[in-house]
This record gives sequence, C-alpha cells and structure tokens, in this order.
Amino acid sequence: MTPLYDRVALIGLGLIASSMCHAMRRAGLARQIVGYARSSKTRDIAREIGLCDHISESAADAAKDADLVVLCVPVGAMESVAQEIGPVLKPGATVSDVGSVKRTVIDAVGPHVPEGVHFIPAHPLAGTEHSGPRSGFAELFDNRYTIIVPVEESDPQAVDRLIAFWGGLGALTETMDADHHDLVLAVTSHTPHLIAYTMVGVADDLRRVTDSEVIKYSAAGFRDFTRIAASDPVMWRDVFLNNKEATLEILGRFTEELFALQRAIRQGDGDHLHDYFTRTRSIRRGIIEAGQDTDAPDFGRVKVRTE
Amino acid sequence: MTPLYDRVALIGLGLIASSMCHAMRRAGLARQIVGYARSSKTRDIAREIGLCDHISESAADAAKDADLVVLCVPVGAMESVAQEIGPVLKPGATVSDVGSVKRTVIDAVGPHVPEGVHFIPAHPLAGTEHSGPRSGFAELFDNRYTIIVPVEESDPQAVDRLIAFWGGLGALTETMDADHHDLVLAVTSHTPHLIAYTMVGVADDLRRVTDSEVIKYSAAGFRDFTRIAASDPVMWRDVFLNNKEATLEILGRFTEELFALQRAIRQGDGDHLHDYFTRTRSIRRGIIEAGQDTDAPDFGRVKVRTE
Repeated sequence: MTPLYDRVALIGLGLIASSMCHAMRRAGLARQIVGYARSSKTRDIAREIGLCDHISESAADAAKDADLVVLCVPVGAMESVAQEIGPVLKPGATVSDVGSVKRTVIDAVGPHVPEGVHFIPAHPLAGTEHSGPRSGFAELFDNRYTIIVPVEESDPQAVDRLIAFWGGLGALTETMDADHHDLVLAVTSHTPHLIAYTMVGVADDLRRVTDSEVIKYSAAGFRDFTRIAASDPVMWRDVFLNNKEATLEILGRFTEELFALQRAIRQGDGDHLHDYFTRTRSIRRGIIEAGQDTDAPDFGRVKVRTE
Repeated sequence: MTPLYDRVALIGLGLIASSMCHAMRRAGLARQIVGYARSSKTRDIAREIGLCDHISESAADAAKDADLVVLCVPVGAMESVAQEIGPVLKPGATVSDVGSVKRTVIDAVGPHVPEGVHFIPAHPLAGTEHSGPRSGFAELFDNRYTIIVPVEESDPQAVDRLIAFWGGLGALTETMDADHHDLVLAVTSHTPHLIAYTMVGVADDLRRVTDSEVIKYSAAGFRDFTRIAASDPVMWRDVFLNNKEATLEILGRFTEELFALQRAIRQGDGDHLHDYFTRTRSIRRGIIEAGQDTDAPDFGRVKVRTE
C-alpha cells in the first residue's frame, strides 16, 4: 500500500499505540513512525524493541513535521499534550486521538488545534487487559470497529483519509457524533467495566470466602469479570470522570433492573427470572452472528500468541 | 484404568452429563453408561449420537442396577427424580448429583435415598453457555474443580471412590460442607451470572442505543457479559430460587460497593476510583497463576474445537 501519511507521530506508547505501530508496518501505511511517551522507561523499552522508527524526547518534537499526530494518552492527559504540541503542528496535518470518551476530549483538545490543522477524533474499540509498549500486536484492530467522530469543521477529505488509515490497520469504521458515541460506549463498555470492577472488589473484600477460594473456583463465572477488571486503572479512572453523565444514566437503569431481579429472587418469582434469562440469550446470538465473538466453549483456556 | 463403577446411570443428558459420558469413556471409568432424559427428543438425539451405551425410557429404569447414579437435572427437578428412583436403588450404590446449589438439593434428595445407599452430593465447576446432549466434550472438567459435599452419613470409602471418579474425569477435587459451598458459589458464580444477565437486559431495553449498536460495539467489554448471560435459563432460575439467601447477601454487598463507586464518579473522586481499580488487578493475577485462565489477550476471537 502507498503510505497514506508520510510521517505519523504517536504520543503515548501503550497497548493501542504499540498495536498501531505493528499494524501500520504490516500494511505499510506510513513512511516514518515517530513515538513519544512521558516515562523515560517506556521510551527506553520502545527503543529497545524497535517499536517506532524514532523515539523523541518530547511530544512537541515528535509532533512537529508529522502529517498525522495521534494522541494515545489517557483521556485526562489529552489537554496538556494538546497544549504542548499545538504551536508546532504543521499546516495541513491531521490530529486525532484514541480516547474512550469523545465529548470531553473534543472540548479539551479542540481549542489547542490551530487553524489549518485538521482535528478528527477517533476511538478504536479494541483492547486487552494488558498495557505498555510490549503489549501491542498487529491484529488488535482486525475486524473490530473504530468509531470516527468528526467535529463540525473537519475537512471531508482529511476524514476520508483517516477512515482509510483505520481500514488499513484492519478495523471496520463507522462515523458518529460525540454525544451518541459516549452513550453507546457507556452501555457497551464503561458500565460493564465498572460492574466488573465492583464484583471483583466485592469478592476481594469478603472475610467468609477466602481469596484462594475465589481464585480456585473462578471458572464458574467470576473469571470472565476479572479479565476486564484488570485493565489499566488510570485509563479507566479518566473514562469515568469524563463520561460521568452517560455512565450514571446507564448505572441508574442497571440498578433498577437489578433490584427487580433481586425482588423476584426474594419473592421466589421463577417466571420472572426465567423470562428475563431467556430474553438475554438472543443478544448473544447476534454478537456471534456479527463476528464479534465465537461460540467456542470455555474460551478462557486457549493460549494465543501475544506478539 | 479399571472401571471404578460397573454401571453408571446419568439422569438428565445436558452439557454436564454428555461431557461426563465423553470423559468417562476417555478414561475407561465405567463398564456401562446408561442415560435417561425426560424429553423424548433428547433421548433420540442421545441414541443417534451414541452418547451412552443404553438410553432408558424412565429414570427408574436407568437407575436400577446402577452402581453410581448421577442426577444431572436442574436443581428444581432433583426432588421428583429422587422420589422416582429411590425405591429401585441397589443396596451399596452411590447417588450423587451435579447441582449448582447443595443445601436445598440435600434437603430435597436426601429423604428419598434408602438405607444402604450412599448419598454424596457433588458439583463440577465447569460449563459453557451451551446446553443439550450435543454440547458435551471430554475436556470440560480438565483442571477444573469439582466440589464434593459429603453429608453426615456419607461412607468414607464411597466418598473416596467418587473423588477418584471425578479425578478420572480430569477434575481437581475439594470437599466442603453444603453451606460454605453455597456461599462460595454465590460469590464466584451465582451473583456474577445475575449481574451479567442484568447488564445484558439493560442493553436490550434501551431505546436510544440500538440492538445493532450494542452488538457491533460489544468487543469493548460488553461481550464478556453476554457469554455467561447466554447460559441455560431453567438451570439459572433454579439456582437463584435455591440459593436465595447467599445470593441476596452477596448482592447486598455488591450494591453497596457499586453505590460507593457511583458516588465517586458523581463527585469526581479520581483517587477513590484509581485505588479501587488498582486493587482488583491482583485477583486477576492470582487466577492466571492458579491456571484457571490464561493471560492471552482478547481470547474471544479464538475458535477452539467443541467435539
């Protein structure tokens, strides 16, 4: 493939950025990849494993002369990075990000993007519970959705190029406005993560059931919660602080439903429980048909390669 | 291996029983396997696929002359089966079950087990979201725990033999009393399932986010919930009706924790969120170290063989 961007700068070198490096190289999407991470340890690891073509010592250094700059830092760190790189951005360049929340990122980053630079937020819906520059792999985005969230001023041609870029990384793409994105993600990602964290926290807290029992007998269901509750704490703190309203709305709905089921258990209302459990099966079928999971049993056991 | 039991009867031919058939044959644990299921369709399928050596037309027929009878029906159906087979059980035989709740099963089945027959409840902590006689596979119990719950009168030799039997099926075994079992399972299995069902139900109910959006973007976390929320509705209805107290206790703790996190989100208390999310990571590490899951990323994608 002809490189879509001559020089791509990644600010932040965690799971998403390192996976982007591998996937960009797989498809030949950039002539040069430049990276920067705040921690010198992360920069050293990135140099050691040859993650990028060049690792810069500052975000501004990485961003200047880049044709595409992607902010791959936690949502709460976006504004200060944008402030630092804003002045050096090349006219005609595109600034994008991979944050899990879009409205507050737009509000935080937008004002620092100078006239003549295209600002096009995006969010790849892909991840694992691992983090850091070693955790990336080229296949992370394959057949997963990346949501492109153009702002009002986004240039259509620049948007098309970014869509082609994510397609080249292996992703399916959709465009959506920021508020709808934040609500959809509150349902499909943010609330499920909070609930998983809560359940794991409860298990960890109990005195009458020991940690070793929780661990030994986790295959009975609990295990599936621990994977998503092992995700990066800083990233998730920022998600909840920045998608407060939508998450609280969905949590309210969740609690309401949970109380109704709890009452059915207390009252011994088997029909209510059975009907509810039957209805939720169909969603699962839809997910498998859409290729977003397999129906393989007990998938937690299979070892797949991580690099 | 020399058969541990001459004739094994399985009452109910769903995921657990059909997996037991495959695993018994793999290890040569029984000279003859007899099966029975209430539905004639299930019996026909079992005959067609040669699941057992013989399929009986009644539970009593299957159980008489058996050296080990395992009740593999939903918890709510245990009592009527026990009532039917009680009179025909052979002196010296062992009656066991695979129910997810133990106290109510002991209360329901115990009185129907005649003098001279060993009653030893058990619970294999293994499963997939699939059900029925075709869903079984020999590896289901490998490296998973089966909890043996002897009652006061259980004969130690008969218990040892049942432990050896489950070991032969591939399982690790532990013994535990019924009340502790029910509490441990409320934490590691029953409450997580109820929460997963609730989350999937909420997503299905929303008007502002469509089903197709929930399905398309499920890889962001929601997907992990749908798998366990696709489990057999009858089995799970019976679990909640029969482990009411422990489940309600853990649900109470869960709601308390969830409200604390919800308040932290509302108040923007990032430290509280970050601390909580950091603490839950260690449990995940314990599970991986104990071999009850792998740390493979994004394991939902891998297709494993089911037969």
